[in-house]
Amino acid sequence: MASSLLKDELDIVIPTIRNLDFLEMWRPFFQPYHLIIVQDGDPSKTIKVPEGFDYELYNRNDINRILGPRANCISFKDSACRCFGYMVSKKKYIFTIDDDCFVASDPSGKQINALAQHIKNLLCPSTPFFFNTLYDPYRDGADFVRGYPFSLREGVPTAVSHGLWLNIPDYDAPTQLVKPLERNTRFVDAVLTIPKGTLFPMCGMNLAFDRDLIGPAMYFGLMGDGQPIGRYDDMWAGWCIKVICDHLGLGVKTGLPYIYHSKASNPFVNLRKEYKGIFWQEDIIPFFQQVVLPKDCTTVQKCYIELAKQVKDKLSKVDPYFDKLADAMVTWIEAWDDLNPTGASAKLPNGKA
Amino acid sequence: MASSLLKDELDIVIPTIRNLDFLEMWRPFFQPYHLIIVQDGDPSKTIKVPEGFDYELYNRNDINRILGPRANCISFKDSACRCFGYMVSKKKYIFTIDDDCFVASDPSGKQINALAQHIKNLLCPSTPFFFNTLYDPYRDGADFVRGYPFSLREGVPTAVSHGLWLNIPDYDAPTQLVKPLERNTRFVDAVLTIPKGTLFPMCGMNLAFDRDLIGPAMYFGLMGDGQPIGRYDDMWAGWCIKVICDHLGLGVKTGLPYIYHSKASNPFVNLRKEYKGIFWQEDIIPFFQQVVLPKDCTTVQKCYIELAKQVKDKLSKVDPYFDKLADAMVTWIEAWDDLNPTGASAKLPNGKA
Repeated sequence: MASSLLKDELDIVIPTIRNLDFLEMWRPFFQPYHLIIVQDGDPSKTIKVPEGFDYELYNRNDINRILGPRANCISFKDSACRCFGYMVSKKKYIFTIDDDCFVASDPSGKQINALAQHIKNLLCPSTPFFFNTLYDPYRDGADFVRGYPFSLREGVPTAVSHGLWLNIPDYDAPTQLVKPLERNTRFVDAVLTIPKGTLFPMCGMNLAFDRDLIGPAMYFGLMGDGQPIGRYDDMWAGWCIKVICDHLGLGVKTGLPYIYHSKASNPFVNLRKEYKGIFWQEDIIPFFQQVVLPKDCTTVQKCYIELAKQVKDKLSKVDPYFDKLADAMVTWIEAWDDLNPTGASAKLPNGKA
Repeated sequence: MASSLLKDELDIVIPTIRNLDFLEMWRPFFQPYHLIIVQDGDPSKTIKVPEGFDYELYNRNDINRILGPRANCISFKDSACRCFGYMVSKKKYIFTIDDDCFVASDPSGKQINALAQHIKNLLCPSTPFFFNTLYDPYRDGADFVRGYPFSLREGVPTAVSHGLWLNIPDYDAPTQLVKPLERNTRFVDAVLTIPKGTLFPMCGMNLAFDRDLIGPAMYFGLMGDGQPIGRYDDMWAGWCIKVICDHLGLGVKTGLPYIYHSKASNPFVNLRKEYKGIFWQEDIIPFFQQVVLPKDCTTVQKCYIELAKQVKDKLSKVDPYFDKLADAMVTWIEAWDDLNPTGASAKLPNGKA
C-alpha cells in the first residue's frame, strides 16, 4: 500500500495534531514522507508524534525566533499558522491536511491513498481555457472530446490540487446550523480543472500544491488570536492563488481525492469566527473578479505584491482589517524571500530545485 | 418506471430513426411524451414508428413546404436537420437524442431515466458566477460550501442540460483513429454548471433545453449535403448558446444523465466531415471567446442576429462558408419568428406559454 512517489520532493504540512490516531491511520501512506507540524496554540504544550515518522515541529516560539518581527504575519491560535510550514519547507510539493481528516474508502471499499491522487493531479496538466465534458482528459480511459481545439490539448502546468471530503461537508456556520445532520455520501469519481476566470472556495483541509509554481501566494492571512475573523484563511489563499494562476497560465484542479472528515466543528463557535466574513465576502469576491495584474508581474512574488497593493487600495474601505492584511501580505513575501533566497519563482515549471 | 413530469410541456426531437429497437427500449420513458421526428435523408423512404407513440414526422418535402425559400437554412442529409423540430415545437422544453443512444444503467444496475434527470437539471437553477466544489448545490445531500457568497445562492434559470455517454465516447475522428477500443466506463455522479465565460463542446446526442429561454439560438448550422463540413452542428450551437446564456444571465449544466451510446461512427467518414472543422475551430474558439454582445441585445433573437453579424465580419475571412452560415443564421431567426409569432423571447424566465 505504501507509496513513496516523489518521496524526496514533497513535505506534508499539518497544523497541530490533537489526535494520535490521525497519524496512525495515515501511517501506510505518510510514513515515507517528511512531516512539518506547525503547532497552533500554547507552545508549552507537547505534541506527541508516534514512532517511525520523520518530522520537524514548530511552535510559536520557533516561529518568533525564525521570523523575528516578521512573525506577525503568521496567525496565532488558528490553523492558518500552517502556512509557516510552506515557507520553511525546501521541497517542490506540499500536501496539507487537517488532523480530523481520516482515510476514506472508495465505493468498492478500498482505502483511498489521497496523497497519491494529489501527486497524480499535480503531475499531469490542467485545461483552464476550454471545458472538457468528460472531465480530466489526461486520466486513463478519458480524453478530449469532439470539438476540443487541438492547440489547447497540451494543457498548462498544474499548480494546485484541491481534494474533497466525505462524511462532514465543508459548510459555513449558517448551513451547519440549518442542516446539522447532512453528510456527504456522494463519491464523485472526477477531477476537473477550474476554468480560467472562475473563482472557487478553496478548502485547506485536503490540499496539495506545487511550491515552486505557486508557493509564495499560498498565504493563509491573519486569522485567530487578535483578529476579527476566522475560517477564511484558506478562502483568502484560494482567491489569491486563483487570480495569480490565471494570470501566469497555471492550472487549479478540484475533485478527487476524498478524505473522511470525521468531526463537524461547533457551528456556534464558527458563526462567531465567520460573522464578519459573511458580509465581507460580498465585497471580496467582486474585488477578486475584477483584479487585473499588469504584464510585468511575471513571478508569483511580483503578482502577490501587486495584489497586496490592490487589496489596500480597494478593500481597506470595507474594513481597516484589510489594510493590516495588505501589510501582512507584503511581510509574508519578505519573510518567504528571506527563507528561500535562491528565488523559487525563477525556476521553470517542473524544474528541479 | 414511467415518468410523465412536464408531459404537456416537453417534446422529444429525434433526427431520423434507423432502428426500431431504439423506441422500444425507451418506451417506458418516452411514451407519455410527444415525439417530433425529423427525417434526415431521402423523403421517399418511410420511417416506421412503433404503435403507441404520439408523434409527428417531417421529411424534406415537409420542411420545404413549411419554410418555403427559407428551408435552405435547414441542413439536408445530416442530423443537423433536427433543429427544424425545435422550431415547429410549441412546447417549453425540448429533449433531443440520437437513435443510436440507448438506456444506460447506473453502477447499481438500475436503468437511468435520462429524461427525468434532464427535467430535474432544467427545473433547478444554475450557478455560473462562482464554482461550487461539491458540484450542483441544489441536489439532495449537497449544498453551497463554506466561502460561497450568499448573494449568489439563488442562482440563475437553467437554459441547457447537457448529458453524457457511457460506452462509446464522443471523440473526434483523429482520437477515434488513435484509440479505436476506448470505451467510457466511468460513471461520474455529478451535475455542474459551466462557469460564465467558459466555452464547452456541446454534444447533441443527449441534450435538453428550455425553448422559451434559449430556443432561437439552438440552430445547428449548415452541415451535410452541399456543405464543406459535418459533425460541427452541435458544436456550433453550443458556442452560440453559451455566449448568449452568459450575456443574458442563463445557466448551462453538464454531467448527468448518461445514455448508452451503442455504436461508434466510422472514423474515416468522420475525418472527411471534420477535416475543415479541425482547422477552423482554432479560429472559431478565439472568436467566440472575445464576443461581446451589446447591452441592447435583450432577447435571444437580438443576440443571435448580432452574433450573425459578428460571424460575417470576423469569420468570413477564415472561409467563405462562414459568410453563408451568417446569412443562414439570420434566415433561421426569420423562420423561427414566422412559426412562433407570439414571441417566445418576450416571456419571463419560467413563464408559461
